[in-house]
Parts: sequence; C-alpha cells; structure tokens
Amino acid sequence: MLVIMRHGASQEQIENVINFIKKKGFDAHVSTGELHTVIGCVGGKVVDPRDIELLDGVKEVIKITSSYKLASRIFQPQDTVIEVNGIKFGGSHTGVIAGPCTIESYEEMDETAAKLKETGVKILRGGAFKPRTSPYAFQGMGEEGLKIIREVADKYGMAVTSEVMEISQIPMFLDYVDILQVGARNMQNFNLLKELGYVNKPVMVKRGLSATFEELLMAAEYVMSGGNREVILCERGIRTFERVTRNTLDLSAIPVIKKLSHLPIIIDPSHGTGLRDKVAPMSRAAVAAGCDGLIIEVHYDPDTALCDGAQSLYPEQFSDLYSDLKKIAPIVGKSIDTQEIKTV
Amino acid sequence: MLVIMRHGASQEQIENVINFIKKKGFDAHVSTGELHTVIGCVGGKVVDPRDIELLDGVKEVIKITSSYKLASRIFQPQDTVIEVNGIKFGGSHTGVIAGPCTIESYEEMDETAAKLKETGVKILRGGAFKPRTSPYAFQGMGEEGLKIIREVADKYGMAVTSEVMEISQIPMFLDYVDILQVGARNMQNFNLLKELGYVNKPVMVKRGLSATFEELLMAAEYVMSGGNREVILCERGIRTFERVTRNTLDLSAIPVIKKLSHLPIIIDPSHGTGLRDKVAPMSRAAVAAGCDGLIIEVHYDPDTALCDGAQSLYPEQFSDLYSDLKKIAPIVGKSIDTQEIKTV
Amino acid sequence: MLVIMRHGASQEQIENVINFIKKKGFDAHVSTGELHTVIGCVGGKVVDPRDIELLDGVKEVIKITSSYKLASRIFQPQDTVIEVNGIKFGGSHTGVIAGPCTIESYEEMDETAAKLKETGVKILRGGAFKPRTSPYAFQGMGEEGLKIIREVADKYGMAVTSEVMEISQIPMFLDYVDILQVGARNMQNFNLLKELGYVNKPVMVKRGLSATFEELLMAAEYVMSGGNREVILCERGIRTFERVTRNTLDLSAIPVIKKLSHLPIIIDPSHGTGLRDKVAPMSRAAVAAGCDGLIIEVHYDPDTALCDGAQSLYPEQFSDLYSDLKKIAPIVGKSIDTQEIKTV
Amino acid sequence: MLVIMRHGASQEQIENVINFIKKKGFDAHVSTGELHTVIGCVGGKVVDPRDIELLDGVKEVIKITSSYKLASRIFQPQDTVIEVNGIKFGGSHTGVIAGPCTIESYEEMDETAAKLKETGVKILRGGAFKPRTSPYAFQGMGEEGLKIIREVADKYGMAVTSEVMEISQIPMFLDYVDILQVGARNMQNFNLLKELGYVNKPVMVKRGLSATFEELLMAAEYVMSGGNREVILCERGIRTFERVTRNTLDLSAIPVIKKLSHLPIIIDPSHGTGLRDKVAPMSRAAVAAGCDGLIIEVHYDPDTALCDGAQSLYPEQFSDLYSDLKKIAPIVGKSIDTQEIKTV
Repeated sequence: MLVIMRHGASQEQIENVINFIKKKGFDAHVSTGELHTVIGCVGGKVVDPRDIELLDGVKEVIKITSSYKLASRIFQPQDTVIEVNGIKFGGSHTGVIAGPCTIESYEEMDETAAKLKETGVKILRGGAFKPRTSPYAFQGMGEEGLKIIREVADKYGMAVTSEVMEISQIPMFLDYVDILQVGARNMQNFNLLKELGYVNKPVMVKRGLSATFEELLMAAEYVMSGGNREVILCERGIRTFERVTRNTLDLSAIPVIKKLSHLPIIIDPSHGTGLRDKVAPMSRAAVAAGCDGLIIEVHYDPDTALCDGAQSLYPEQFSDLYSDLKKIAPIVGKSIDTQEIKTV
Repeated sequence: MLVIMRHGASQEQIENVINFIKKKGFDAHVSTGELHTVIGCVGGKVVDPRDIELLDGVKEVIKITSSYKLASRIFQPQDTVIEVNGIKFGGSHTGVIAGPCTIESYEEMDETAAKLKETGVKILRGGAFKPRTSPYAFQGMGEEGLKIIREVADKYGMAVTSEVMEISQIPMFLDYVDILQVGARNMQNFNLLKELGYVNKPVMVKRGLSATFEELLMAAEYVMSGGNREVILCERGIRTFERVTRNTLDLSAIPVIKKLSHLPIIIDPSHGTGLRDKVAPMSRAAVAAGCDGLIIEVHYDPDTALCDGAQSLYPEQFSDLYSDLKKIAPIVGKSIDTQEIKTV
Repeated sequence: MLVIMRHGASQEQIENVINFIKKKGFDAHVSTGELHTVIGCVGGKVVDPRDIELLDGVKEVIKITSSYKLASRIFQPQDTVIEVNGIKFGGSHTGVIAGPCTIESYEEMDETAAKLKETGVKILRGGAFKPRTSPYAFQGMGEEGLKIIREVADKYGMAVTSEVMEISQIPMFLDYVDILQVGARNMQNFNLLKELGYVNKPVMVKRGLSATFEELLMAAEYVMSGGNREVILCERGIRTFERVTRNTLDLSAIPVIKKLSHLPIIIDPSHGTGLRDKVAPMSRAAVAAGCDGLIIEVHYDPDTALCDGAQSLYPEQFSDLYSDLKKIAPIVGKSIDTQEIKTV
Repeated sequence: MLVIMRHGASQEQIENVINFIKKKGFDAHVSTGELHTVIGCVGGKVVDPRDIELLDGVKEVIKITSSYKLASRIFQPQDTVIEVNGIKFGGSHTGVIAGPCTIESYEEMDETAAKLKETGVKILRGGAFKPRTSPYAFQGMGEEGLKIIREVADKYGMAVTSEVMEISQIPMFLDYVDILQVGARNMQNFNLLKELGYVNKPVMVKRGLSATFEELLMAAEYVMSGGNREVILCERGIRTFERVTRNTLDLSAIPVIKKLSHLPIIIDPSHGTGLRDKVAPMSRAAVAAGCDGLIIEVHYDPDTALCDGAQSLYPEQFSDLYSDLKKIAPIVGKSIDTQEIKTV
C-alpha cells in the first residue's frame, strides 16, 4: 500500500499518517518526490485504504497487492486445463457446452441431446432451478429435471452442467451433475461459493451483471480457498446503458482474464446478447479471440421453449455454427474437441 | 402486450403473427395505423416477447402489464407505514436507523448505542455476517454478534436490524432481530426472498448494484407473494462509470418509488457514497427529497472500526446531522420520530 | 508517477524499467518493499502510463499529480464566487436560474419572465440553438431567439444565460447573453472550450453524460487556461442502466466537487430527471446538499411548450418550490439571493 | 405512438387524453383490452411522449416510428458499399485502415507507411488535430501534419483518413484527406455533422462513449440528411463500470447495426481496449463477427510514439495479425481487400 501525500502537506501531517500506519501494524517507508511525499506501507495486516484517505494531507491511497492469489497467474503461470468427459477447457482447448435453457420434459431433453450428439457435443446444459425476476414465472422442474437431464446424458454418453442456487441443493446436485454452475445473480453469494470450495467437481462461475474482472476473480478465489481448484470462469454480458441487446457481451474478458489468471474463461453468447441472430456472430468472435470454451443455448424446437426460446439456436443453426468454429479455432492455436461420431 | 409490425409488413406476415399469438393462448386485436399495423394481445398466459420479436415483419413487442402487483401503488393507493419500536417508515414519517457497520464487541456496541440513544435513535444496526469481496477479510462475529446487539439494544430500549445472508440463518435471526435486511448482493437471491415472505417481521430489501427500480420492486414482490407485506425498500447506490464515489447514490429513487409503489423507501448514504464527508450532505438531501427513512453508519470511534470506518460518522457528527434533519423534514411535510429523552 | 513491479520481478526487468524512465526524462527513485519494488518517477515530462505498464515485470503504473491545476482547490483554497446581476454562485450563496427550455416567441418569454420576476428570479434561461438528437426536430430560433430573450430580460431587469454550440457563434452570444452555457454533448468540444477561455463573461460547463468528475474539471481547466476564471460547473445527470429516469442525477457531485475544486457547482434537476414531478424533490435535495445554484426549467404554459414541456414546472409550482428552497438553504449555511420585489 | 392507459383509468381521463392528442394534430384510435385501454395516435406531427405521460391515468407512451430513415435498412435493404482507393467497406468486403495515432513527423509517417504498404494496407490513418482531455497535452501538428500524411500516402499509393474537429477545418481537410472522421467526443456535435452532409467524401462517425446504437444511427442521419450518403459507422468502445480496459469494446455492434442499417460498421480495437496485447484478439473477433472493416493503430516504433503508443501495434505484430484476418474473413463470407504487392 502506498500513501500519496498532497502537494504541500505539512511535516506534522506526514508524521500523523506514519503514526496511524504503524498503529495498524505496518512499517512505513517514506520517500520524498519533487511534489509529493509517498509513504510505502509494508506488512501483512488488513486496513481499509479509505481510513487513511481521510487523514489530513493525504491525496490518495493505492493498494498494490491484488486480493486474489490462488486464481492469479503469478501464483500459477501455466494454464489450468479442466477436463470433463473428454472435453477440455483451457490451454490449447476450446470446449463446447450446449443444451436448452430449461429442462422442460424428457422428450425435450432427449430430442435436443440427440441432435447435439450428432453435431459432436459431449456436455449437456439445462436448468432445473431457474432464477426468475418474477415470482409468478416458471421456476423450473427441480430435482425431477435433474433426473431427466442425467438420464438423457447417460443415454448419449454426455456429461451434465446445471445451475445450483442454494447451499442446501449441493448434495442433490452432486448426484446428478458433472459441472456445478453459479449464476450471475449469485456471483457474490459468498456462502454458496465457500461451500462449493469443498466439492470435488468443477465449478463454473458466471460474471455478475455489474461485476468487475477483479470481483469475478475474487469469486473464484472463494471457491479455490476451500480447496477446489477446478474453476471455470464465464463471461455472459454486463449491464450497460445500451438496451437493444439484453446485456453487453464483453469479449475483452478473454485477453484480460488470460493475462491475470490461469483459469479457463468461457463465453455465454446466448445470455450475453439475448437474441438468436446475435448468437452465431458472437460465438465466432469469442473463438477468434481465443476463448477456452462456449456455453450455447440450443433447443430442438425453440418456438415451443418455455424459457429463453428467443435466444436458443435451432439444431441446424448450431450445427453450421459448430462447423465454422472448428475452422476458426486452429487459426488462433486452439482446437475444439468433439465427440467421435462412429459411422458404421 | 402489443406487437408493432414493421412499416410494409405483408398480410401474410401479419397473419403469421396472429396465428402464433393465438397458439400461445391470446386473443388478437388488430388495428391498422397509417404506417404500422398494431396487434393487441389479450389474455393471461405468459410469453417471452422476444419470441414474437423474431417473427418476420415484427418491429417491436411491448409488454404492458407490469410484473409486480402487490408492490404497486395501483394495487394499494395509500402509503404502507411500517412501525418498529415506535418508529415509523412511510406516510408522513421518516425513520432513522443508525449503528456501526459491523458488530465487533460488546464494548463497541454498548458505547455506540449509548451515544445514539442520547441523540434519539431507537433502531440499532450492525452486521453479524458480512458479505466480503475477499475470502480473506473479516467475515463477522456470527451468532455471537447477534447476541451482543440484542443485549445492547434491550439495555437501551432499542430495536435491531441486521443482514441475513442465507435461508438457513432465518430462524436464528428471528430470535434476535426486529428487521431482517437483504443486502444488495442478495437482492436477486430469489430463494432467500421467498422464504422471507413467510416471516412475520419487516424485511428491508436493498437495491442491487445494477438493479433497475422495476427489479427492486420485483424483489419486494417475491417477499410479498409469500404473505409478508412489511417490506422496506432501500436505495444504497448503484454502480456507474464514476469511481470517485464508491457508488452513485441515486436519490431519484425517492420520487420514482413513491410514484410506482406504496412501500416505504429509505436511503443508505454510508454505502451510497463510501466516504464520511459525503454522508451528511447526502442525508440532508435525502430528507429534503422526502425519503421515508435513513440508515446511517455511526461508530463510537471510527478510527478503530474493523470495517467501513471511513464511511462511519463520529457520534457528534451524527448528532449535528440529526438536528439538521429534524429541521428539514417538516419543510417537506414529514417528521422524524425520535426517542423521548427523559431528563430528570 | 509510481511504477509498481510485479512480485518476483527480476533485477533485469527492474533495470529495464529504470532505463526506460530515464530515457523519457525522469529521475527514478527505487524503494524495495516486502513483496514489490516501487519505482518513483520524478520530473516534468509527459508520458503515457500505459507505455510503462507494457514493460516486462510491471504490475501497475500510478499517476499522482492531477491534471487540473487552475480548477483545483489546492491551487486556490477559498471558494470562487461568481456574481451575475446581483445573484451570487458559490461561497454561502445559492443562485437560481429559471426559464423555458427553448425560446419560442416573444409572448412565451414575456409571460414566463413576468411570472419568474414575481417569484424573485433575476437570471433567465432559454435556448436559441438546440442540440437535438434528430435532424428533423425543431432546432431553435437562432439569433432571433437571442434578441427576444435579451429584450425580455431587459424589460424585467434580468440577466440571460443560453447555450452556445459553435465557436463561430461566440461573438453573437457576447452581444446578447451574460452567462455562456456549454451543453453536456459539447463538454469535450475542446476547441470551443479553449475559445471561451478568451471571453470575459462567465461560462457554465455542463457535465457530459458519461464524463467523470475529473473530466468535468479538465473541461473547466481548458476554459481557465485561456484566462477566463469565471467557470460555473453544472451537474445535469449521467447515463446509467436505469431508464425510468431520463438520466441519473448524481447529487454527490456537490460534496465531491466542493472538495476537489473552488469553482461553484450548480444542479439542473430538469434535465437530470426529465419529468416534472421529480424536479421539485430533487431541487430541494440539491439545496439541502449545499449546492451553489440551480437551473430550472419553467414555462408559463408547459402544455404548449415546443420542447421539454414535460420537465418544465408550471409557474405556481416553481413559486412554491422557491419558497421551500429559501427555507432549506439557511439550515446548511447558505442563502438564496432573490430579486427585491417592490411593492408600492 | 401508442398511449397505454392505467388499469382502472376513468372514462374522463381517457377522453382528456384523446382531446390532448387531437389538439396536437393526431387522429386517435381507441382499443379497449382486458386490462388496459390503448390509444393509437396517427399523424405526422412531433410531440414529446412525456407530455402525454404526465396526463392523469396514463401508464406509458410508446413511440413506434424510429427517428432515422435514411440510415435504416427498411429504407434501403441492400448493403451500402463504400469504396476508397480500391478498398471496400460493406457487403462482402472488410476494409482495413492502419497507421499511427498521431502524425508526429515526416519520418514517422514514412517509416510506418512503408511497413504498412508491405503488409498490404491501402488506407493510412493519423491524427493532425487531437482531442485531448488535458489542455496541457500535445494537441497535434495541425495542417502541417495533414500535409505530411498526404505526401506520404501519395508516395505509397495510399488514401488518407483523419479526424476533423471543427466546421471551420472542413475545407482544409477536403484538400488532404479521403475519409473525414468524426471522433467519439464529437458524435453529437450536430452542427459539424450537418456540415459534413454537404461534403462529397466519405465520413466515418465514431460511436460516442455513452451513445446508444440508435443515437449513432441518428448521428449518421444528420450527415445523410444533408445529401452525403457515404457514412461509415465505427464502434470504438463504450464507457462502463469496468476500468481494467480503457473502454468496453461492444462487438455486438456488428450484428446489431447490420440488422438495423445498411451502412458499413467497422471496429477500432485500439481505442476500444487501450492496450496493445488486447488489440490482436479483438481484431480477430471483430472479423469473425462479420465486421465491414477495422481501423488499427500501428506505429513503426511504438516505444517512441508521442501519443497512445501503448495501444499501437509493432509493424510485425500487425503483419501477423493481418495474415490471420485474411484467413478468418472467408469463413464468414467476407474478404479482406489488399494492396497488390508487385514482386519483380
């Protein structure tokens, strides 16, 4: 931490700050510049920088050490690669997850999964518990839904990812799913994150609507500090003044996170844009920017979908997109792992 | 819901939309304007407007009915007035809540409460479970803290408000506190909100960092739909591009919420600005704008506070502010209820 | 400027940074902390901090000296008080400016000004050149409008403020107006600001829709660096995700600007909210927060206004508000100067 | 325009609205739904929707016709393709513009252009007049700079683009440049836009930091309404709460603008991210999303650049990127036109 004194701060003010810092358990290193005196604070104690900012003569206080360690690339220079059902996220791998927004029925999951398997997908998504803005909207099928998605996934040799909303749901989820998702609205549900640190399955943490990259990495740190190092980060759009798109999908998340962290960063273009005709362009863009994975909403018949049909691709649209992505990935040194399709 | 067709939409496109709407269970009322055909949809079924927006020839789809009902002023024209320990929020009343950010020790709460009682405060705040961005920061005293705040409040004849973070904590909170707070980061923790609907104590819901007013009212609706009609809304600053202030305190929340809803709207200037020297001006502003209450951080010795000391007022600053607020309130037709101070 | 090296940066990386800095004309002062080496850069040359950020081993670069000087309270500790027609902005004074959005006709200005004079207003506002989002909307009366507002103001002993949009319009404005306004969309029209630095009349600079406080002060600096020290800053709402209000009026501008700068800060609640019924509460709030002035849209008959009638007050609403403001100001140590109304 | 009456609005309120609408010159078509009465307003007059919103019993007012016409794809279904020096923007073409942020000297432009020509670039960028936040920063070489860039471009058979900041500069720019740029801070400098409507060279309009897509299209409409139909739109990042990147580059601009408008949309990844190591990933992403062009900052020696060196690519980085882009474009049905490099 560095304390920058105002131009013209008195010797008394400087000493007052030094005393305050020492009282908080820091060592103080003073250096005097042309215009400003700068006090470096060394030591392990935690202090709120604003406490110092309020002292007389202080211009600014600057925190240096970032608050995340386990998630930081400084802590681990090489990429974390997470493998689920033969599909890898991170390093030179771009994993693809697909499926409907919500689990609606066995038939819906079965028909959708059949199409996805044909395309080469090996991880199936689908919500069983849905965070809905309105208490009067469909809230998901619950455990019944998890049973369905598991059964269908097993039938087609696929893995499962689904969103967990509550600590009390974790044991149930461990019975059915392979990747536990934390939704954007729960990204700072710190109790939930902490509990997921004790789970031995990968956790996907979605960036909150107004979360900074640092806060996203801190959310990952919560999970990792419990012992679980398999965290996948997911950019799914942030809230800005622009309302033509549902959210503003921030693809700079890809180079930014890759510089700051060793964790894989994947993109959700379906929630990120909210409209089907924007999903394919943004998926291609994400792969071209070097993302470690994609999670895309696909429904065997979007017109009848109970939820978010408007942002779900038709199976044939997805299949075309998938084929484009396989061409783009190698240009940026990545490959899209895919289900081997046995043709007799 | 209204479907606006594009200028020049064909008869076939219009009929296609009408068929789609009817299939979803609506009645369709067509009216043809100079430039646009407008299709009114009548009926109770839920449909995602984007599903219609994607049909050929559709320009825009407009939802008419707002999704909140119980929280709406249309549902209840007169103000909801919530009374806790003789202090009222709503109508012509402006209630004041004060106390430290965090419960740190018996001594801290006792010294702070003694000062607040002198000023006239009858509701004490203090966090026992703290949502902290970093897993390595102090996370609060837990139930031990709740015991302390209850004991101190009882000593001074005060009521208690504190933040509940988890469904599993609700029974514990009911033993100690009089108002259950839902923090900004939990404003869309829908399961928690739902459970609080079954509680028979007032619930204070804080606006999320990037929540619209409509979403805040929907959060209240979640609580109210469970049966609990005692909801206090709290504006505590939103996240914008400006970073000099910790958040941007949106005081227009006061006239906006008062027009849309009958629920009381209170202001948290401490989190809303993040710096002590901004708290007093913004508190005065909030009362002048007609708010139904304030929740202000005060610490008997902010320099030693474990958390958010920088935004906590000194007791004497708070006392001066309180006296200003009592002068401003009557100018806008409100009064600040206060503890009778018995002088022998 | 301070360069923070990454934890574990090599000696070679540190020396490379020092060489780079010296090449740019700085002196380098190295101090070695527990975790990080910090290099202080002293000297007058300008460098883009990002150039250093890109060097190997660099964690962060921190600029210390703020870019504005003339506008800074460090440069001038006492408040700048600007007086126009006997009305003062700054210090213990809160000046009020009122009038319609647009100059529409002599009759409109005359009827509005007559009402405002009765209330006690001495500075009249009105747009002659209107920045309109659409090229097809009414663009203002131009010089004809300026003639009208001047004539009406003279009739009632008032001063005039109006928005100048173009360098080429400045000489014309000097003939008619007493305060030259720079609109939010022009806040970074640096050429215009520079020219206004050579004018010897006060300039009011409105905060841009997405301008930080620092950028607003830099805009003032542009004017001041030309020699004109009479700059009034105006908060008129910023753009956020919330769309119920036209903009989010950021009243924390008042304590923030007053701390950073000696220049007066006034509030425009009409553009800041965009709806008449929000104007009075936010005006009261602004005065309670200690603003140095208000600029409010009032129209003698808002229902017939050509522009922004929806955010214009009726004269009787304004008169009631004005009387409230005169009661609130003294509570915060300010007074609202007013036109003496001679009663025979 | 549609006026939605509140649930339970009285017959008198409805009639009052109808009278108001008719007084404003509209025809009113009333249709009564289950819950709401909706009044359709037909006719050509302009009215501020908020005027009606303030009438008793009104819930909401919805504008239907979009304000831009010439820029709209409804007005012109086929893509506008703009050709400059053999390079096309729009349709199946992705044009590339490159060059330094600022024109610093003949040598700088000459060395940079020589490198760019080798890569295949045919349009050179470089600022002569720089909009700088600080009045104390380097403001550009002015006309001297324009002479240099023209001379260098002619030497290598290239075209020139540069930012015009002022109406009075237009004639000078017409002497030297082939595309006139309007910067983000000037996107709503309506007078400047209007004047550029009378120019017979292409105009590139950059999206403002907080401009919506609709406002960007309205800015284009200003130019087009003067007669100049050659407008290129440019996304260069918007301002959000995230500050790790200088701006948030909103690549969804590509599919969004392509749906709403026939005008070409190009991307500026240099300003959009502000850091060199983010430029290549975002450029690849933009081409994969189907953009009509890119404008990229390249400097022959970024370490010595006077301005924005940190976001400028080294020539060899640019050359590698360019070769990637040529591979990605065909996957999305586009091609990158390039300078024929004659090898003897």
